[in-house]
Amino acid sequence: MNEAPIGMFDSGIGGLTVMKAVMRRLPNESICYFGDNARGPYGPRDIKEIRRFALEIAAFLENLGVKLIVIACNSATSAGLLEVQRSCGVPVLGVVEPGARGAVQATHNRRIGVIGTVATIHSRAYLKAIHALDAGAKVHSRACPSLVGFVERGEVEGPRIEEEVSLYLSPLGKREVDTLVLGCTHYPLITEVIGKVAGEDVSLISSDWEVAREVEENLVRRGYLRDSTRPPSYRFMCSGDIGQAIALGRMFLGPEVEKVEKVELIEGWTRS
Amino acid sequence: MNEAPIGMFDSGIGGLTVMKAVMRRLPNESICYFGDNARGPYGPRDIKEIRRFALEIAAFLENLGVKLIVIACNSATSAGLLEVQRSCGVPVLGVVEPGARGAVQATHNRRIGVIGTVATIHSRAYLKAIHALDAGAKVHSRACPSLVGFVERGEVEGPRIEEEVSLYLSPLGKREVDTLVLGCTHYPLITEVIGKVAGEDVSLISSDWEVAREVEENLVRRGYLRDSTRPPSYRFMCSGDIGQAIALGRMFLGPEVEKVEKVELIEGWTRS
Repeated sequence: MNEAPIGMFDSGIGGLTVMKAVMRRLPNESICYFGDNARGPYGPRDIKEIRRFALEIAAFLENLGVKLIVIACNSATSAGLLEVQRSCGVPVLGVVEPGARGAVQATHNRRIGVIGTVATIHSRAYLKAIHALDAGAKVHSRACPSLVGFVERGEVEGPRIEEEVSLYLSPLGKREVDTLVLGCTHYPLITEVIGKVAGEDVSLISSDWEVAREVEENLVRRGYLRDSTRPPSYRFMCSGDIGQAIALGRMFLGPEVEKVEKVELIEGWTRS
Repeated sequence: MNEAPIGMFDSGIGGLTVMKAVMRRLPNESICYFGDNARGPYGPRDIKEIRRFALEIAAFLENLGVKLIVIACNSATSAGLLEVQRSCGVPVLGVVEPGARGAVQATHNRRIGVIGTVATIHSRAYLKAIHALDAGAKVHSRACPSLVGFVERGEVEGPRIEEEVSLYLSPLGKREVDTLVLGCTHYPLITEVIGKVAGEDVSLISSDWEVAREVEENLVRRGYLRDSTRPPSYRFMCSGDIGQAIALGRMFLGPEVEKVEKVELIEGWTRS
């Protein structure tokens, strides 16, 4: 057993969907979450810069004494997972491999769709991760640039977002995709719309749930589950606007987001 | 649900340890096993030749109507998993990734040892699979050429094999490996000796058990578990000496190996 918290980070608030899934699956685990909302979203940034940010934040979380780090951000996973794993003394999980794995295990016809931000789709990270597990799977990817905006505005249902999702998903339908990876941490908030548009024959693979499964397997096998009878603690930190972090945090996670601490990351403070 | 059998193959009889683990974990599943004992062991053969054999056998099993194929052979997985996945219409699992995954999830100090045949260790397949999951893990590999011979002679305990295992494992101990992957399908028969020599602080990761877990996840998520109340069927096939297949088969799997069918594979009969 290991009483230390799990560390998680994202370029902003989206990763809280992953935290929520981990809290549901492992309700006794303490979690420290860091949202880099001063510098997020990472999508438009240079890959080397994203990698540097990821190394900085992981070093910060490791310094807090976390037992495991989850990069709850598709852009940061694609840009820097390997480097963060190499630099950290604790295990580090990303969001891409668990989602890819879930899709490969679930598909019947081995035709898998992936939706995400432009940065995630262009990185081809899901394509590579799916083919590492099943080289014969057909992968059809589609960037859906406007969906994050819909979610952050709170427009998670209604005809406008349905129409938008329909436009994005129509080419995937023609390719007879039977499994769709929601490759963006914002999408768990619009699973219902996506499921309605995709149809009941398409299995939705939500990275948040898949990551929670992976975190559980890692902690169980290592004997690292928290064993205390005291309730777990949740700590929320961000680098930017606290008001925005609380407002979006409640939307993405729930009323547990009461207090958010502002943390100044010192540039270049990475573990050597 | 899906009543079709699982297809499994190996260069010989070693893969029956994997079959045994799958039978234990999924006692209601039917299995067709093919051992290529006319052409095995594959270790000394050219990688392209091994790949061709794997493609032939997978096509043969697919033709029998299996719902999933397991390449229960480290050499054939290293040489041809990707090609078999690309050529088959059913999902194909190898033995390397599940073992690598188990080790990455189990290790505390992220120092992982791997033992296997010369061919498996030289292929660096475990090294690559472990680093794909944790780029920061330290991997120490060791080929143990004589162990397969000990197992096939039935010498699975006693001072001679203990001494042999000690010689192989001593460099791994110096590197503070806390997790050891048994990267050869023969090793489940000598787990006890290996565990005794490695010491109780070292977790042994047995590919057979890890593959069974992976098979279960794949069938459960697809809704492909067999649901019949009739007992499952086990079919044993080989390409070479039936007497040897039965004798070794009983040693590796048990008295279930009553009858072995000889199958002539026609050269070049691969699914195009």
